[in-house]
Amino acid sequence: MHIDILTLFPEMFDGVFQSSMMKRAYEANVFDYRYVNFRDYTDDKHHKVDDYPYGGGAGMVLKPQPIFDAVDAVKQSTDHPPRVILMCPQGESYHQQKAEELAQEDHLIFICGHYEGYDERIRNHLVTDEISIGDYVLTSGEIGAMTVIDSVVRLLPGALGNDQSAKQDSFSSGLLEHPHYTRPANFRGLTVPEELLSGNHALIEKWRRKESLKRTFFRRRDLLEEIELSEEEKKWMEEWNHLKF
Amino acid sequence: MHIDILTLFPEMFDGVFQSSMMKRAYEANVFDYRYVNFRDYTDDKHHKVDDYPYGGGAGMVLKPQPIFDAVDAVKQSTDHPPRVILMCPQGESYHQQKAEELAQEDHLIFICGHYEGYDERIRNHLVTDEISIGDYVLTSGEIGAMTVIDSVVRLLPGALGNDQSAKQDSFSSGLLEHPHYTRPANFRGLTVPEELLSGNHALIEKWRRKESLKRTFFRRRDLLEEIELSEEEKKWMEEWNHLKF
Repeated sequence: MHIDILTLFPEMFDGVFQSSMMKRAYEANVFDYRYVNFRDYTDDKHHKVDDYPYGGGAGMVLKPQPIFDAVDAVKQSTDHPPRVILMCPQGESYHQQKAEELAQEDHLIFICGHYEGYDERIRNHLVTDEISIGDYVLTSGEIGAMTVIDSVVRLLPGALGNDQSAKQDSFSSGLLEHPHYTRPANFRGLTVPEELLSGNHALIEKWRRKESLKRTFFRRRDLLEEIELSEEEKKWMEEWNHLKF
Repeated sequence: MHIDILTLFPEMFDGVFQSSMMKRAYEANVFDYRYVNFRDYTDDKHHKVDDYPYGGGAGMVLKPQPIFDAVDAVKQSTDHPPRVILMCPQGESYHQQKAEELAQEDHLIFICGHYEGYDERIRNHLVTDEISIGDYVLTSGEIGAMTVIDSVVRLLPGALGNDQSAKQDSFSSGLLEHPHYTRPANFRGLTVPEELLSGNHALIEKWRRKESLKRTFFRRRDLLEEIELSEEEKKWMEEWNHLKF
């Protein structure tokens, strides 16, 4: 996969791309990336990328010309039409299914604005996807792009070792993860549930399933709508419902 | 505000903290931050921070001891009890209201794991808040912590200039933003809506409100539940409903 990132602040990404999973994935040729500073594409002699909004008001607006021309230049270097992703609060709410969809692509372009709004013509005539990582206000699209890129790259073949691939599968159960414990069995008087120390595999699996359901029930009941439950599991829910009220 | 970040990868944050709004806010003493590498707090001679999970299974689990001791050390340097925030997929879904709540605090501690699970005793006996930035799988808590920190710091007094403060207010309308346009009025044959070029302030405001409602109606109808609408606006909705089906 090739990733182009249109940004005025390429240095924001270095720490993330040069650490941990992303660093290893890059070194293993799982993906590569390039920063495109769209200020380099301005046709105005002051290299201004933004201008005042038509109709007045506070805040500046990113001009169409530098971003259109930067994306055009990137597209000339590829055969297949890339996905052009705009990071913005008005975009579709990002979910794991979208990460899985983007992981099928050969080429992604991310457009990251900073403070300013985007001229609407960018949205309507240049981008293929508008993405919001959540209902909170961020200063810049850069952190959102890092979020999307991390979640996509880790799905690419060869990005993760076997251990982590397995954990990924566990997420696709649709439930929140069960609790984990490691040594010591007694830390400052806080102990580990005896089921986990029993060595009884069936008991451990049952404990984990129940704890996973319980956590999902109390924290994210919305996720349970998609889950098929056994009769015993439905009874657990009834008990928890009783606890709650 | 003081922020302590417990992380094994402090270098991931540098690009974000040393750019743009965060850099200016730090230089203006709006907030300060410190990295705490909890590997430095291990009491084991190999400086191992994780261990195998009780009950077996793939993946490693972060041990309680280094994280408890690192948080204890940080707490000793402060008078008020800090908020201790765990970044994890099982946490509460992050929203702007939570950013506003955290912006009232003097001291935040973030705990960032990487691949591994957290020993449950960390969750139950050390942290005050568990936060998830969205329903997608990330390699590390670091990108989530950057997200939360950016959204909180920009709310602190003095972090933003006046222009940006105004934009922030516009978010609190609860609607998605209306479209923005800037020069040129004609770019590659794509033109700016004539209302915005009219110079008629009332017409412009009405156009913006309508476009903001329309965008919210078609993209995020869930947000409209909280909005009070005029009779005229309700009629617009009926027309859009008609368009949609």
